[in-house]
Amino acid sequence: MRRSVVRGCAVLVVPEAGECSVEPDRDIWIEDGVITAITSTGQTVAEGIEVVDGAGLLAVPGLTNSHTHSPMVLMRGAAEDLPLDRWFNERIWPMEVNLTPQLVRVGAGLACAEMLLAGVTTFVDHYFHSDQIASAAAETGIRADLAPTFFSSNGPDERDAAYDAAREIRALGLDRVTASLGPHAPYTVSDADLERTAEVARADGFRIHLHAAETMEQTTSSQQRLGVTPIEVLERTGVLDAGALIAHGCGILPADLPILERYADRTAIASCPKVYLKMAIGATTPFRGLREAGIPVGAGTDGAAVHNTLDVWEALRLIALVEKQNEQDATWMTISDVLRVATRGGATAAGLGTETGALEVGRRADIALVDLNQPHVQPVHDPRAALVYSTRASDVVTVLVDGEVVVHERRLTRTDLTEIVGQAREVAPQLVDLSKGGAVQTYDA
Amino acid sequence: MRRSVVRGCAVLVVPEAGECSVEPDRDIWIEDGVITAITSTGQTVAEGIEVVDGAGLLAVPGLTNSHTHSPMVLMRGAAEDLPLDRWFNERIWPMEVNLTPQLVRVGAGLACAEMLLAGVTTFVDHYFHSDQIASAAAETGIRADLAPTFFSSNGPDERDAAYDAAREIRALGLDRVTASLGPHAPYTVSDADLERTAEVARADGFRIHLHAAETMEQTTSSQQRLGVTPIEVLERTGVLDAGALIAHGCGILPADLPILERYADRTAIASCPKVYLKMAIGATTPFRGLREAGIPVGAGTDGAAVHNTLDVWEALRLIALVEKQNEQDATWMTISDVLRVATRGGATAAGLGTETGALEVGRRADIALVDLNQPHVQPVHDPRAALVYSTRASDVVTVLVDGEVVVHERRLTRTDLTEIVGQAREVAPQLVDLSKGGAVQTYDA
Repeated sequence: MRRSVVRGCAVLVVPEAGECSVEPDRDIWIEDGVITAITSTGQTVAEGIEVVDGAGLLAVPGLTNSHTHSPMVLMRGAAEDLPLDRWFNERIWPMEVNLTPQLVRVGAGLACAEMLLAGVTTFVDHYFHSDQIASAAAETGIRADLAPTFFSSNGPDERDAAYDAAREIRALGLDRVTASLGPHAPYTVSDADLERTAEVARADGFRIHLHAAETMEQTTSSQQRLGVTPIEVLERTGVLDAGALIAHGCGILPADLPILERYADRTAIASCPKVYLKMAIGATTPFRGLREAGIPVGAGTDGAAVHNTLDVWEALRLIALVEKQNEQDATWMTISDVLRVATRGGATAAGLGTETGALEVGRRADIALVDLNQPHVQPVHDPRAALVYSTRASDVVTVLVDGEVVVHERRLTRTDLTEIVGQAREVAPQLVDLSKGGAVQTYDA
Repeated sequence: MRRSVVRGCAVLVVPEAGECSVEPDRDIWIEDGVITAITSTGQTVAEGIEVVDGAGLLAVPGLTNSHTHSPMVLMRGAAEDLPLDRWFNERIWPMEVNLTPQLVRVGAGLACAEMLLAGVTTFVDHYFHSDQIASAAAETGIRADLAPTFFSSNGPDERDAAYDAAREIRALGLDRVTASLGPHAPYTVSDADLERTAEVARADGFRIHLHAAETMEQTTSSQQRLGVTPIEVLERTGVLDAGALIAHGCGILPADLPILERYADRTAIASCPKVYLKMAIGATTPFRGLREAGIPVGAGTDGAAVHNTLDVWEALRLIALVEKQNEQDATWMTISDVLRVATRGGATAAGLGTETGALEVGRRADIALVDLNQPHVQPVHDPRAALVYSTRASDVVTVLVDGEVVVHERRLTRTDLTEIVGQAREVAPQLVDLSKGGAVQTYDA
């Protein structure tokens, strides 16, 4: 049995509803990756129990990046100041012609490093060559749910290969890596393929992670072409019944909410507001309606080709800011609410709603220890406000996943960061090379 | 003569219009605080010239915080999730009853530390006990323009004392500290006092720094009460003619733009978008109209009682994101444009439009050396995009003001950060204590 204790930290308590609070001077006791007790600090520590120093630090549930395409860190800054259609058609999808398993492996390695160092202990991914992403996650020690992506335009063989890729990831039997099915979106995957995906999901016990209703234009276009909204497409094809994580949902209509409510026990939404602002989407994930419908929402970054970071602190801060503005109500999306989105909400989005997302007895010990003593955070009248509005990812000092210290004093414990960054720098030019021509897909949504 | 060279850095070139660019492998030569040459690196360095290592770093013009109330860092996180009127009336203005010169000195010291460590080399301040802020600025080595604040409700003596405070700061003869006149806003300062301020400004050669048209509601209220907009008030009282830095301007109407255009050579606006989102203001500084009218705009944080940081990187990123969303145009407010706002725009807002804000021969050597080698920034396909969308304030390594190294390897060179933070932590409870009752002002705009 592995036993450890995080000693002398403060602990952020995130209840299922109501205000978050901070308990000072705690010890977090861990056995085989599970929190077994949270006590006042100062008890004697028996021999054989690893001690993690938490003095002066605030223990926060490890954050979840609820929607990303991790290997796209290799495209960071390579497609700026473009609208969504040109971003896809002139840059991203032509670049992805160059994808190789090696590029995905290197990109995912860098992404896992960036996220762990920022206290992101779980990420929910949607991309190609997911076996390579599983390898990077396993090496760095981060938790991940991986959905191998497919488009209908490439035919049923690619679709079936993506299902097989999910099965193969599951067959690896990695403790911290799960798989989902990853149809790209209703506008790039046929109804027949969505139906087939729902069947496979139910038969094999997978969840489905896909983009849907990303913009209001997509919803309008769906209504004009098909007579139904993207959410209605997900219902009639059985995707909602199978259980879905929906990325973005900025085009979810009020009339879609009662539909989603019927599947509230197996539906979650990932919101990535930096992307909606940067792409001038003109709408955002409808948090208020989703909350009333009982649908959990997590915070995400989307890929770094548009978000430029995988920083969930940035994402949660923007959720608070954008929501207050969107609802014209400074009292909405409180510091407690947005911390809940990024922890419990993210855990649910990752399919881990009962296992991670809170520092409670019985949950996995996924913990970010945050330093609130830096000049940009001091003085701390309210540590919850500090987490939402002042801290930077660089204030994360030590990170545990499953009770294992994977970041210690701002350094990865398992892997060599210099090597990871060096490889990324070396291979990135191959990925952004547009000389071959072609594209993996055309955006016309 | 003090001579130094920043050796082997890349240099961000910010032209007056058009795209920014990055020149690799440069040396920046400095004499008595002024840039005298920017050359290819590798020339012999004569004895007696101080060498600042810039290898692997990007030299960026030191950023300007175009509008803040620096001592309010002591209130960080003490007033969350409140609308503007309650934020003022229930928290901020009652807290300011407790202000003392010592509290202001301690708060300003912490603020200067936070800003310098983030590569902010100039701040434009609007607060009480400005002599104490001058002292903190002088001690840490940051550049500052300080406007002693007054309200008409406290009578002409306080108004005149504020003018005198500006004269006294000027009389200190500090190299890096200038003064402006600081009427609070048209809704808290009478027309007669604005007229008097304009007279003093013209007579004594001061600029005027004030809040105006902060929200659309303020503009509507002004029209209903007075028949004119806040900008029209500034014109008819002579404030625009004297030369003004206007904080926020979210309530500037299209009809105000031709007025501002007449004073374009002596008017600037400071935009602090995190505040507009967090306070659910419902509008933002009208960048497009202001650009068409030729009015310079800088990036600001406002006070940390609402912004929670004095991080101008955060402010400039939010300007890009909010502007794209506001104009529904992802191609608007490009990476080059927003870098220009935070550098040249900020310099103009500080009254230093020809002295700082660009790394050019003849300008002051105010430089932030930024590390783009961190995993959250790599790979760097476009260093300009990295600055806007990926870097954190903690990526600033070394900072020069007037050619003097004031931050070296992420540490203040002149002052003891531990002491500054310790003092702030000690005195902050005095400031947020609401037991005395009363308020320095009532918000009813």
